[in-house]
Amino acid sequence: MKIVVDCMGGDNAPYSTVEGIVEAIKEFNIEVIATGDKNVLEENFRKYEFDKTKLEIIHTSEIILNEDKPVKAIRGKKDSSMVVALNLVKEGKADAIVSAGNTGALLAGGLFVLGRIKGIDRPALCTFLPNKEGMSILLDAGANADCKPRNLLEFGVMGSVYASKILDLESPKVAIVNVGQEEGKGNELTKKSYDLLKTNEDINFIGNVEARDISFGYTDVIVCDGFTGNVVLKVTEGVAMSVFSMLKDTFLTNMKTKIAAMFLKDDLKALKKNLDYSEYGGAPLLGVNGGLIKAHGSSNSKAIKNAIKQGIHFANGNVLNEIKFKIDKLGVDQIE
Amino acid sequence: MKIVVDCMGGDNAPYSTVEGIVEAIKEFNIEVIATGDKNVLEENFRKYEFDKTKLEIIHTSEIILNEDKPVKAIRGKKDSSMVVALNLVKEGKADAIVSAGNTGALLAGGLFVLGRIKGIDRPALCTFLPNKEGMSILLDAGANADCKPRNLLEFGVMGSVYASKILDLESPKVAIVNVGQEEGKGNELTKKSYDLLKTNEDINFIGNVEARDISFGYTDVIVCDGFTGNVVLKVTEGVAMSVFSMLKDTFLTNMKTKIAAMFLKDDLKALKKNLDYSEYGGAPLLGVNGGLIKAHGSSNSKAIKNAIKQGIHFANGNVLNEIKFKIDKLGVDQIE
Repeated sequence: MKIVVDCMGGDNAPYSTVEGIVEAIKEFNIEVIATGDKNVLEENFRKYEFDKTKLEIIHTSEIILNEDKPVKAIRGKKDSSMVVALNLVKEGKADAIVSAGNTGALLAGGLFVLGRIKGIDRPALCTFLPNKEGMSILLDAGANADCKPRNLLEFGVMGSVYASKILDLESPKVAIVNVGQEEGKGNELTKKSYDLLKTNEDINFIGNVEARDISFGYTDVIVCDGFTGNVVLKVTEGVAMSVFSMLKDTFLTNMKTKIAAMFLKDDLKALKKNLDYSEYGGAPLLGVNGGLIKAHGSSNSKAIKNAIKQGIHFANGNVLNEIKFKIDKLGVDQIE
Repeated sequence: MKIVVDCMGGDNAPYSTVEGIVEAIKEFNIEVIATGDKNVLEENFRKYEFDKTKLEIIHTSEIILNEDKPVKAIRGKKDSSMVVALNLVKEGKADAIVSAGNTGALLAGGLFVLGRIKGIDRPALCTFLPNKEGMSILLDAGANADCKPRNLLEFGVMGSVYASKILDLESPKVAIVNVGQEEGKGNELTKKSYDLLKTNEDINFIGNVEARDISFGYTDVIVCDGFTGNVVLKVTEGVAMSVFSMLKDTFLTNMKTKIAAMFLKDDLKALKKNLDYSEYGGAPLLGVNGGLIKAHGSSNSKAIKNAIKQGIHFANGNVLNEIKFKIDKLGVDQIE
């Protein structure tokens, strides 16, 4: 098992990436390749004690910045930490890449360097969504703003494979985000996607899920276009944050509420953490020909470690081959 | 000022509609027409003491049920409490209709009975969205699952008029719900809508608002297609509810947290109420030729009273004529 980490990508790179790698090597006993400026990385890794035989540093001379145009950056910066890392996955020298760098560039890199799985029209970002019962996965979380019905079918198949491996479910429940539960509800996309998903025998399609019910955890795999997915994730984040901010104001009302706040401090911290989806490491780009885990731009070392863990699960679970098998069986290229 | 209330529509009709009307007559000193079964209504109104000269009951023999097909119901049930009430607005005998009945039928009734304002392609449901700073309005909240760019422009103009009257703002800030703030972000619809809205001089367009920031109140009028609007509203509702439900679990952890909960009870109740968008009465359907306020199906008497209040504001604020003036000036029929 070997994971390659783009050590120069992310707001806190290379400190968070280096520390995350050290923690991952200690905790999961795996081999890691780190791409980036050799001098900088060696200087940073020197601070930690860990089994250095597990680490290989590959020097790269360029960095893809957040303000770089995605496609131009991937095509132009051939010796960047991100492109070199992607090529290592492509050549089979690493099982998955983890990067907290420029999201657009990483998605473009997935398409251009790793390539799409045969039969997949649009790869999708797949993210964890904490809910009252535990965890769901949602895709597409934002890679494709406009989608066709066949894309949502592909998302359902890929998400189903991923959830069965990662959440250890035998037959994950798959649903479409919609404005009502009944068949026939929604916009053109959801109506046509419903027809496609309900006739597929490989997935456990349970119909539509109303956006209101997502956070209650009635479903395991939630599919939607990337625009809707992004809205769901960001409203969830925003509302949770503003409720906590209002709670904080409530706590400051008077002496009684201040005492109550003191009593609740630890429990509320745990609750807030449970709701913060950035805690759950990275989001895999499903549908490309290799393991690719996108970590948050603002990842700290723990988030990087968790993203590496997801890369390990992705490779161990044989997710890629399983998706290839299911998509091949689907013959989705027949569908418009 | 005269408001007509469809007394037979809604889960709690006619009890909630009758009580809501009584409260509204007492509080706002207005005239109300009640449509519905005369015997039933008279029997219910008899329970209350109020100025009965303010009330007129118009007998109707049919009821549009929740399971009725919208268009068929509006066309077929000519003597229903809803259709008769709509006709009273059309004929100028009432300034606005309030109904908690079948939503689809009410929207269809708005289109077929009242008709669209000249120049409006798609009327939109406009709803209040509580936020940290106070209140925003969002449209379309679900009347049109699929929209064209010109629709979002119309929503911006209509929402702007409504917010200036109802929230008493001189120049309401208008924004498009999007996946990023920068121009050029989003799907085909939001990109093209951005171009239309930014060149319009009648509205204070501030660009895109990320779904994450909606609940923080940076903007007054939020425009989007009805699918996205519905998702935003329902995720907001769902997350707020599930956070409160998790809080409740947290409170039950041990003796300390139980005491804290006791201290916080009243403040939390107030906070929860502030977040519940059903508290804010009804949602007007903007763009039809008359005042139409859709109340929640589950409205209690207070919600009915608040919806009547919105009808009064709508009529007093001259919202209809102002929208007609702005849309005429827009010449939006030129736009594809």
